[in-house]
Amino acid sequence: MGNADWIAVDWGTSSLRAWGMSAEGAVLWAESAGKGMGGLAPDAFEPAFMDLVGAHLTDDGPIDAVACGMVGARQGWVEAPYRPVPCAPLDPVLTAAPTRDPRLRFRIVSGLSQSDPADVMRGEETQIAGFQSLNPRFDGVICLPGTHSKWVHVSAGEVVSFQTFMTGELFSALATQTVLRHSVQTDGWDGAAFAEAVDDAVSRPEKLAARLFSLRAEGLLSGLPAEAARARLSGLLIGAELAAARPYWLGQNVAIVGASTIARRYAEALAPLGVPATVADGDQMVLKGLVAAQSHAKETHA
Amino acid sequence: MGNADWIAVDWGTSSLRAWGMSAEGAVLWAESAGKGMGGLAPDAFEPAFMDLVGAHLTDDGPIDAVACGMVGARQGWVEAPYRPVPCAPLDPVLTAAPTRDPRLRFRIVSGLSQSDPADVMRGEETQIAGFQSLNPRFDGVICLPGTHSKWVHVSAGEVVSFQTFMTGELFSALATQTVLRHSVQTDGWDGAAFAEAVDDAVSRPEKLAARLFSLRAEGLLSGLPAEAARARLSGLLIGAELAAARPYWLGQNVAIVGASTIARRYAEALAPLGVPATVADGDQMVLKGLVAAQSHAKETHA
Repeated sequence: MGNADWIAVDWGTSSLRAWGMSAEGAVLWAESAGKGMGGLAPDAFEPAFMDLVGAHLTDDGPIDAVACGMVGARQGWVEAPYRPVPCAPLDPVLTAAPTRDPRLRFRIVSGLSQSDPADVMRGEETQIAGFQSLNPRFDGVICLPGTHSKWVHVSAGEVVSFQTFMTGELFSALATQTVLRHSVQTDGWDGAAFAEAVDDAVSRPEKLAARLFSLRAEGLLSGLPAEAARARLSGLLIGAELAAARPYWLGQNVAIVGASTIARRYAEALAPLGVPATVADGDQMVLKGLVAAQSHAKETHA
Repeated sequence: MGNADWIAVDWGTSSLRAWGMSAEGAVLWAESAGKGMGGLAPDAFEPAFMDLVGAHLTDDGPIDAVACGMVGARQGWVEAPYRPVPCAPLDPVLTAAPTRDPRLRFRIVSGLSQSDPADVMRGEETQIAGFQSLNPRFDGVICLPGTHSKWVHVSAGEVVSFQTFMTGELFSALATQTVLRHSVQTDGWDGAAFAEAVDDAVSRPEKLAARLFSLRAEGLLSGLPAEAARARLSGLLIGAELAAARPYWLGQNVAIVGASTIARRYAEALAPLGVPATVADGDQMVLKGLVAAQSHAKETHA
């Protein structure tokens, strides 16, 4: 295994991942840590990064690192300004982060913004670029489920519009911080309960607020199993997302980019709505996108 | 000031309140503590209660305490079984809690349950009874906003049906446990933003999931003030509750029972929907309800 030619970095709110890349785009090593952007002051980013990758560095001269995600937020290492849509997901101009170690040259991919309705993304633009690099003729909608799910309309190589849903974060807050925590503590899953809840929320979205407490009440009164309650909670929230995202998926060609379990659930939720979806792995798309960002990078602004 | 004839107790998940009552229903003293049912093991209830009221007790013989709220839940001091609706809000039979101190006779009001849709209440039945004692001919809908808002259909002195909404708890979880915490940190309030958000959620409930993250995005991109974001978040969630509770308030005579600020906001939210609402103070209704429970109590089951 040779030395890495450059380092690909995905630095989100809650975790930091880095891959040593060959000039041909192969992964030579991979490291990860829980040191997300959310817990770091600006001057703690470089030490955190060097802790993770320092052992892989040589004295052969500075190595490039190209990063996406919340590391480029206002509260991150350095702010990489948003680029307003419509635009290509990546720009050749990256933002340089200040470094003290002369062996490191660290640059950050810009996020995207939309003025009306107001919306922002950081990190997903890189996954979209990765998907495009594998599917250069794709025209349609990309769904990126997660903590903050995104629905993204892509046409002629550009991001035309997008919409963010707090579905993952909402699920987590409800399942751990409210009375529902007593009802959904399980790793189990009831697929039929999930499908019914999606259908209910998509077809009767005005009833959503009435559905949540019933998970607790059915647990108390009729012993609703935790796996049914957990799947129903997830189905209600994903169904509410689909109800609001209808203009994105209706009659569209949908690609889901995400981790395998959640991507499969979104595909299961879309199928009964007559929306076939292809699924692509989120981690692979981040890496492909960072490869595209590194190869296209021409300039840097600090 | 004479000694209390009996003690009225409201013991919820997060707080314990007790009032020394005269035989005529006047309040002689009041005590409160943060010792909610949520943080106590079953054998810690009596010591917590005696800590709060012990200084008021005499050796004149046992004193009655009548309590409502989560103290009667399965995880409370002793379970006071649910009574299925339709039924009067209070039953002459109370549930005795085991006590060690011979000066105390502690009894708990039962909550109400509904099988379809599954739902439960503990504490609100006492507020409803208090409202009924002041308004014996009331026939219509009582809305009890709060952590878990209730909409209750009351007819001929009975609770006919009810529905719980997690609106207050959802607001708290979103405002403190998600990315929206950065956007809503203020004590300020923008009444116009609240009214617009209620209208938006009631008339387009299917869009709710798309509205939440925009509070954060507008803060980042166009400096949405925190008081507008906070009021809009509240308006969206109360609007979603109203959308789902439509069968309760449409064409109905509505009384709102709750703390003054939240009760006023619900009244403001209902007014543009053509629903005039009278407001009654939640604490006063608890006390009136406990007076009714004490005066009607005939039997005890343990």
